[in-house]
Amino acid sequence: MEKMTWKDVQIARTENCIVAVAIGSTEQHGPHLPLCTDVYIPLGIAERVASRVKMIIAPPITYGYYSQVRSGGGGEKFPGTTSLRSATLVQLMTDVLDALMRHGFKRFLILSGHYENSQLIGESVQKAMESHAADVHALVVNYWELITPKIINEVYGSDFPGWEIEHAGVAETSMMMALRPELVRSELIQDNTSNRKLEYDIIPPPEDIIPKNGVPWKASLATRGKGELLIHEAVDKIVEAVNRDLMDTKSL
Amino acid sequence: MEKMTWKDVQIARTENCIVAVAIGSTEQHGPHLPLCTDVYIPLGIAERVASRVKMIIAPPITYGYYSQVRSGGGGEKFPGTTSLRSATLVQLMTDVLDALMRHGFKRFLILSGHYENSQLIGESVQKAMESHAADVHALVVNYWELITPKIINEVYGSDFPGWEIEHAGVAETSMMMALRPELVRSELIQDNTSNRKLEYDIIPPPEDIIPKNGVPWKASLATRGKGELLIHEAVDKIVEAVNRDLMDTKSL
Amino acid sequence: MEKMTWKDVQIARTENCIVAVAIGSTEQHGPHLPLCTDVYIPLGIAERVASRVKMIIAPPITYGYYSQVRSGGGGEKFPGTTSLRSATLVQLMTDVLDALMRHGFKRFLILSGHYENSQLIGESVQKAMESHAADVHALVVNYWELITPKIINEVYGSDFPGWEIEHAGVAETSMMMALRPELVRSELIQDNTSNRKLEYDIIPPPEDIIPKNGVPWKASLATRGKGELLIHEAVDKIVEAVNRDLMDTKSL
Amino acid sequence: MEKMTWKDVQIARTENCIVAVAIGSTEQHGPHLPLCTDVYIPLGIAERVASRVKMIIAPPITYGYYSQVRSGGGGEKFPGTTSLRSATLVQLMTDVLDALMRHGFKRFLILSGHYENSQLIGESVQKAMESHAADVHALVVNYWELITPKIINEVYGSDFPGWEIEHAGVAETSMMMALRPELVRSELIQDNTSNRKLEYDIIPPPEDIIPKNGVPWKASLATRGKGELLIHEAVDKIVEAVNRDLMDTKSL
Amino acid sequence: MEKMTWKDVQIARTENCIVAVAIGSTEQHGPHLPLCTDVYIPLGIAERVASRVKMIIAPPITYGYYSQVRSGGGGEKFPGTTSLRSATLVQLMTDVLDALMRHGFKRFLILSGHYENSQLIGESVQKAMESHAADVHALVVNYWELITPKIINEVYGSDFPGWEIEHAGVAETSMMMALRPELVRSELIQDNTSNRKLEYDIIPPPEDIIPKNGVPWKASLATRGKGELLIHEAVDKIVEAVNRDLMDTKSL
Amino acid sequence: MEKMTWKDVQIARTENCIVAVAIGSTEQHGPHLPLCTDVYIPLGIAERVASRVKMIIAPPITYGYYSQVRSGGGGEKFPGTTSLRSATLVQLMTDVLDALMRHGFKRFLILSGHYENSQLIGESVQKAMESHAADVHALVVNYWELITPKIINEVYGSDFPGWEIEHAGVAETSMMMALRPELVRSELIQDNTSNRKLEYDIIPPPEDIIPKNGVPWKASLATRGKGELLIHEAVDKIVEAVNRDLMDTKSL
Repeated sequence: MEKMTWKDVQIARTENCIVAVAIGSTEQHGPHLPLCTDVYIPLGIAERVASRVKMIIAPPITYGYYSQVRSGGGGEKFPGTTSLRSATLVQLMTDVLDALMRHGFKRFLILSGHYENSQLIGESVQKAMESHAADVHALVVNYWELITPKIINEVYGSDFPGWEIEHAGVAETSMMMALRPELVRSELIQDNTSNRKLEYDIIPPPEDIIPKNGVPWKASLATRGKGELLIHEAVDKIVEAVNRDLMDTKSL
Repeated sequence: MEKMTWKDVQIARTENCIVAVAIGSTEQHGPHLPLCTDVYIPLGIAERVASRVKMIIAPPITYGYYSQVRSGGGGEKFPGTTSLRSATLVQLMTDVLDALMRHGFKRFLILSGHYENSQLIGESVQKAMESHAADVHALVVNYWELITPKIINEVYGSDFPGWEIEHAGVAETSMMMALRPELVRSELIQDNTSNRKLEYDIIPPPEDIIPKNGVPWKASLATRGKGELLIHEAVDKIVEAVNRDLMDTKSL
Repeated sequence: MEKMTWKDVQIARTENCIVAVAIGSTEQHGPHLPLCTDVYIPLGIAERVASRVKMIIAPPITYGYYSQVRSGGGGEKFPGTTSLRSATLVQLMTDVLDALMRHGFKRFLILSGHYENSQLIGESVQKAMESHAADVHALVVNYWELITPKIINEVYGSDFPGWEIEHAGVAETSMMMALRPELVRSELIQDNTSNRKLEYDIIPPPEDIIPKNGVPWKASLATRGKGELLIHEAVDKIVEAVNRDLMDTKSL
Repeated sequence: MEKMTWKDVQIARTENCIVAVAIGSTEQHGPHLPLCTDVYIPLGIAERVASRVKMIIAPPITYGYYSQVRSGGGGEKFPGTTSLRSATLVQLMTDVLDALMRHGFKRFLILSGHYENSQLIGESVQKAMESHAADVHALVVNYWELITPKIINEVYGSDFPGWEIEHAGVAETSMMMALRPELVRSELIQDNTSNRKLEYDIIPPPEDIIPKNGVPWKASLATRGKGELLIHEAVDKIVEAVNRDLMDTKSL
Repeated sequence: MEKMTWKDVQIARTENCIVAVAIGSTEQHGPHLPLCTDVYIPLGIAERVASRVKMIIAPPITYGYYSQVRSGGGGEKFPGTTSLRSATLVQLMTDVLDALMRHGFKRFLILSGHYENSQLIGESVQKAMESHAADVHALVVNYWELITPKIINEVYGSDFPGWEIEHAGVAETSMMMALRPELVRSELIQDNTSNRKLEYDIIPPPEDIIPKNGVPWKASLATRGKGELLIHEAVDKIVEAVNRDLMDTKSL
Repeated sequence: MEKMTWKDVQIARTENCIVAVAIGSTEQHGPHLPLCTDVYIPLGIAERVASRVKMIIAPPITYGYYSQVRSGGGGEKFPGTTSLRSATLVQLMTDVLDALMRHGFKRFLILSGHYENSQLIGESVQKAMESHAADVHALVVNYWELITPKIINEVYGSDFPGWEIEHAGVAETSMMMALRPELVRSELIQDNTSNRKLEYDIIPPPEDIIPKNGVPWKASLATRGKGELLIHEAVDKIVEAVNRDLMDTKSL
C-alpha cells in the first residue's frame, strides 16, 4: 500500500482483496543483522504470499512490544532496541485495522516477526472488529510456528534449541540471507559464548543473564539455502491456511 | 496480607520481607476444575515458599489476561471465563505494586498461574519501579517453567504434550488434587476427544478449533502424588532462585 | 464462581441467575481487623443472600479506591493499605461486568464494603451496559445504608457517630465477629484516643489528623450479637430489594 | 484569573498568593435555579474569601462528575445535565493544577459545589503534586460540610433533611438569592411532590425514583437572609482553615 | 445554558435548537488583554449569532490545548497560561458533546477562539457522533478564517502580518474593545520590540524566540471600530454558513 | 537505523549523533502519487541532511494524524487513508523518543511531511523529555515552512495557492519526481476540476466539499527540477538550523 495510490486501493477493495499487515520490531539482532530484521522477514514472506493469493500489503508496523531478556532479544538495554508499551501497541494496531475495516476490507492476514507481539495482536484485532460488520475475519500468524519438524530437522539436524532462544540465530540469519542478503554482515557473525540461562525473569536484569553480543545461541551455521527452505515452508503453509480458513468462510 | 492487620504489615516491612503477588485468572478449566485454578495453584505454591523464606503474600489478582484459544484456555466464549484487557491488567498490577513499593517493600516475587499474563507482568513491574528507589528487585515466575525434564519424565513418561496445551490436564489437575482436593471433581474428568489443532490463530475462532469440554489434552492420568511432585519441585526451585537472585543482591 | 466449573456457570446462566459482585478494599482496619475486612463483609452478606435467591457470586474485587483520610480509612500511608486509581478501578469493574454480560447474565447485585468505591461503581456498570442488550439491570448496594434507625439504635444506643467515621469500629468489628471470628483479634482492640477532626481535607495530610491506630472512633463495644443483627438486617433488605427491583422488572 | 493579564499573575506568584479553583457542574437544579448553580456558589464564596486572604481565582471547572440519582441531581437524564467521566475529570483537574504548580504556585484552595466531585479531587491534587516540589499544599472543601449545627438550626429549624437530598432546596436556593438573585426564578419554585426514596441504586433508574421536577426536597422556604447566613458561615470557616492549615505550614 | 434551567433546555430541544460550544484557552494575551480572551471573543460572537438563529450556548470550555511558541501564545512558560494535554481536551470535548447529543440535540456550532485547538475539535466531534444517530451535524469554525480579504484590508491596510502571529494584536484587541471594553487595559499596550522569528520549533525554546511581553506583533493600532467590523463580518458569515450547511441538511 | 546493527547505534551514540525521526502518513495523494508520499519526502530530505551533519535516521512513523478535509488530504473517506487518533500518535511518538533518549541520544531532528501531525509532535517531544536529563534538545520541522518566498516564486510564479491546499500538487509531485521518480505516475496527473471551498469544517463532510480525485489544486506543472529546487532549499535551511540551534547549544 505504501507505493499504491488510493485508486489502486479502491480497486483492491472492489476485488475483495485480503490485507496483510506485517508487525515487527526495532530490536537488536546481533552484530550481523539489522535492527528491523523482525520487519523484513514477515514483509518478505507477505510479498511471496501476495504473488499467490489476492492480497495487498499495508505499511508495516516497525516498532513492537518490549523485548524480553530471556526469549531472544535480550531486553531494552541494547542500543537501538526501541519498543512500545502494550497500551501503545494495542491502540496503534487497533487504529490501523479499524481504518482498513472502515474502508471495506474484510479479510486480514496479520504476520508477526517478533515473538513478544503475539498476544497483543489478538486483542487489537478483536477490538477493531467490535465496531464493524460481523463478517470480518483474520488470521494471525507467527511464521516460525508453521515450520514443521521435518524442515526443522533439515535446517538444524538434531541441534534445534527451541524457537524461544533462536534470536538472530540460524533461522533469522538464513532467512535474511535469502530475502535481504545485502543487509547481512556475515563477517561479523559471532556465536554466543556464554551467559547464565534462567527459567524465570529478574527485574532489573543482572548483567550476567544478557548475552553480550545479543545472540543467545548461534548464527554461524546460517546459509541462504536454509533461509529459502524456511521461507518456502512458511509461505506454503500460509497460502494453505488462507485458502482453507480465510477464503472459504461461509459468511464471505 | 488479606488476613493480616496493618501492624503485621508494618513489622514485615521492618523485617525487610519479600512480598509475593500471585496472579491468575478466572477461566474455564474443564468440567472438573474450578474457574480460579490459576489462582489457587500459585497461591498454594506461594504459601509453601513462605514457610521457607521471609515473605508475606498480597491479596491475589484473580482476573487475568484474555484466554487464548490455542494455548489452553479455549478463548473467551466459555461461560465463566472472565478476563481483562491488557491496559486494565497492566494498570491494576502497576497500582498494586506501586502501593507496596510506596510502603517500603523492596523485594517482590511475582508468581503467575496463567500463561497469558506472562508478558504484561514485566511491563507492570518496570512501570511501578520507575517512581521508586533504584534498589527494588523482582523475580517473575511462571511456575511450570521451573519443572525440570527429570520431573516431567516422572509425571508424564514419554507422553508430555508441551506446556502450551497442558491446560486443565495432568499437571493442573494433579496440583489441585494436592492443594485443594475438595475442589476437584474427579468423577467429571473427561479427556479431550478431538478438535482441530492449529499453528496460527483464527479470529473469530470457528467452532471446530475449540475443545468442546475445555480440556485440550487429557486429565485422566492426574494423581495427587504427581501434584505433590510438581509443587515440591516448583517450591524448591523458587526458594533457590529467591536466595540466589533476590536476597543476595549487592544493592540490598 | 471461584470454585465453580464452567459447566456450573453455564447452568446458572440458563437458569437466569443473578450475579453478585462484592467490591472491597485492601485497607488498614485498626490493630484488630484484617486488611480485607471490606471484602469479607460484603462477601459474607452475599453468601447469605445467595441462600435465599437464585444467585452466583463472582470472584470479589479485593483492591478498592483510595482510602480517605477523614472518612475512616485514614489515607494511603498506613502500611498495607493498597488502593487503585479511579481509572484502574473503573476499567477493572467494567471489564469484569462486560465479560459477565457477554456470557448472557442480565441481573447484577453489586455489593460494596468500602465507602470510597461508591461513585465509581455506577459509572462502571453504566459503561459495561453500553455494549449490551438493553435488558440488563443492576442494584448497587452499600450494605450500611440499608441499616434502619431502629437497628442502629439497638446496636449503638444513642451513641451513633455517623457511618463516615465508623471504620473498624462497632459495626465492622461486630460483623467480622459474626462472619469470620477467627480473624478478629479482640485482645488488640483499641479505641481511638484522639486526633484532630476536620470538615475538609488537607493534602498532604498533617500527622495530627490521622488516627494513630487507624480506628477513628471505637471498637470496644463490638459483639458478635450486634454483628448478627446488622448482617441479618442487611440481608433481609437486600433480598427485599432484589425481589422488588431486580426480579420484577417488566423487561425481564 | 479569567480577567487578569499574565503580568497580574506574575505579581500574584511573587506575592505567594493562594490559588482558588472552584469546581462545579452543569446539572439540573429544579425549575427555578440555573444549570451552573454548583459553579456560581463556590465561585461566590471564593470571591468573598479572596477579599480576606491573598488569593487569586482560576477559571472555574464548569463540568462535573456524573450526577447521582439518589443524592440530589437525579441522574443524567434531565435535559441539560452535562457531565464528565471520572477519567476525564481527573485528567482535567490534574492538568490545570499541574500547570499552576509549574508556574510556581504552592498553596491551593479547591472549592467544590457538587457532591459527586468529592473523591476525585483528592486524586487529582495528589497526582499533580507528584511531579512538583514537596512543599505544595492544598485544602479541599465541600462548602456545605463547614456549616455548623447551630447555623443549620437557624436555617432549617428542626426540619433538616440531610445534605444528600438538599439539592436545589433551601440552602442552594437561598445562597443563589444572596449571590445571583437575578438568576433565581422564585415564581417557579416547586417543592417535591413525591418519588420513591431508596437506600440503594438501581441502574438504569426506573421512573418512579427520579423526582419529577428535579428537586428532591423543598425550596419554598428559601430566603436571601438564609443564604447570607450560610455563605457568611462558609466564608468564615474557610478563612479560618486557610489561616490555620494553609498559611501556617512549617514548610512554607 | 449556564443560566438556563433544565426546563429551558427541554424547550430548546423540542424546538430543535442548535447548540453552540465556545472553546478557548487560558493563555497570556499581552500586558493589556485578559487570560481568557480566547473565550470571550467566540462567546461574544456566539451571543450575537444566537440573536439571529435558534440557538443556545453551552458553558464554554475555558482551558485549551498547549500554547505554541511561534504562532502567537509564546508557549507554556508565561505565568497564567494553563493548558491541557491533547488527550484531556479530546476527552473533555467528547464527553460534553456526547451528553448534549444524548439529550437529543442534533445540530452543533463549535466556535474556537484558540488556534491550537483546531485539529482536536474535529476528532472529538467525530468520536461523540459515533455513539449517536447518524443525523447529527456540526460546523466547526475558527472565526478568523471567515474574515474576507476586503475586511482585512479595511482593518490592516497593507500591513497584515498573517493570522498566525496576530496574537493579542490588532484583531483580538479591537474585538475585545468592542465586546468587553472594561477588560482591555489600553494604557498598557506595548508593541513587540523584537524576538527572533523562526520557521521551525525548538524544544525547549531558547529565551530569544519568545516575545518578551507576549505580543508577537502589535496591538497599538487596535480600535473599537475595527473590532465591530471584524465581529460583524464573522457573525454574518457564521449565520450564512449555519443557514446553508446546518439548517438545510436533507437529513434533518 | 532500520538497516543498522546495534553496534552501529552504539557507535553513533558515542559520537553524539543527532537522531532524525521522519513522521508522515498513509494518506491519499491523488491518482498519481503513492499513499506514503508524506513519509518518502521527509525521509528523502533526512537522508540528504545526514550526508552533511552527524546524524542517524530512526525507522519512520508511517501512520499519521487524521487527514483534514479542507487542508489537503480530503479526510478519512478515501480508500487507503489510514490514520491514528491523537492519543495513539502522541503515545507512539513518546514511546519511540523516550526509548531513544534512554539509549543516551540528546539531539533530535523531527521532520514531518504531514501537516496534521504538527501540533502533536511538540507535546510528544515534551512528554518524552520529562523523564530524561535536562540537556535534551529537539528541532521540529515542517519542511515546507522553510521554503523562502524567493524559491516559491521560482516554482510557482505568481500562482502559489498557499501550502494548506498544496496537497499532491506542484510541490509534492515535483519532490517525489526528484526523490522517487519510479513511484510517480505522471500519466495519471489530473488537476482538480472543482469542489466547493470552505473557510470552516462540516462534520460529516458533504460530498461537494471533497475534491473528487484527491488533489485540491493542480499537479500538472510539477517537474523534477522544481523538486530538486525545493529539496535543496529545505536541506540547506535544515542544516543551517541544526548547526545554529542544535549543535551550538551551550548545555551540550
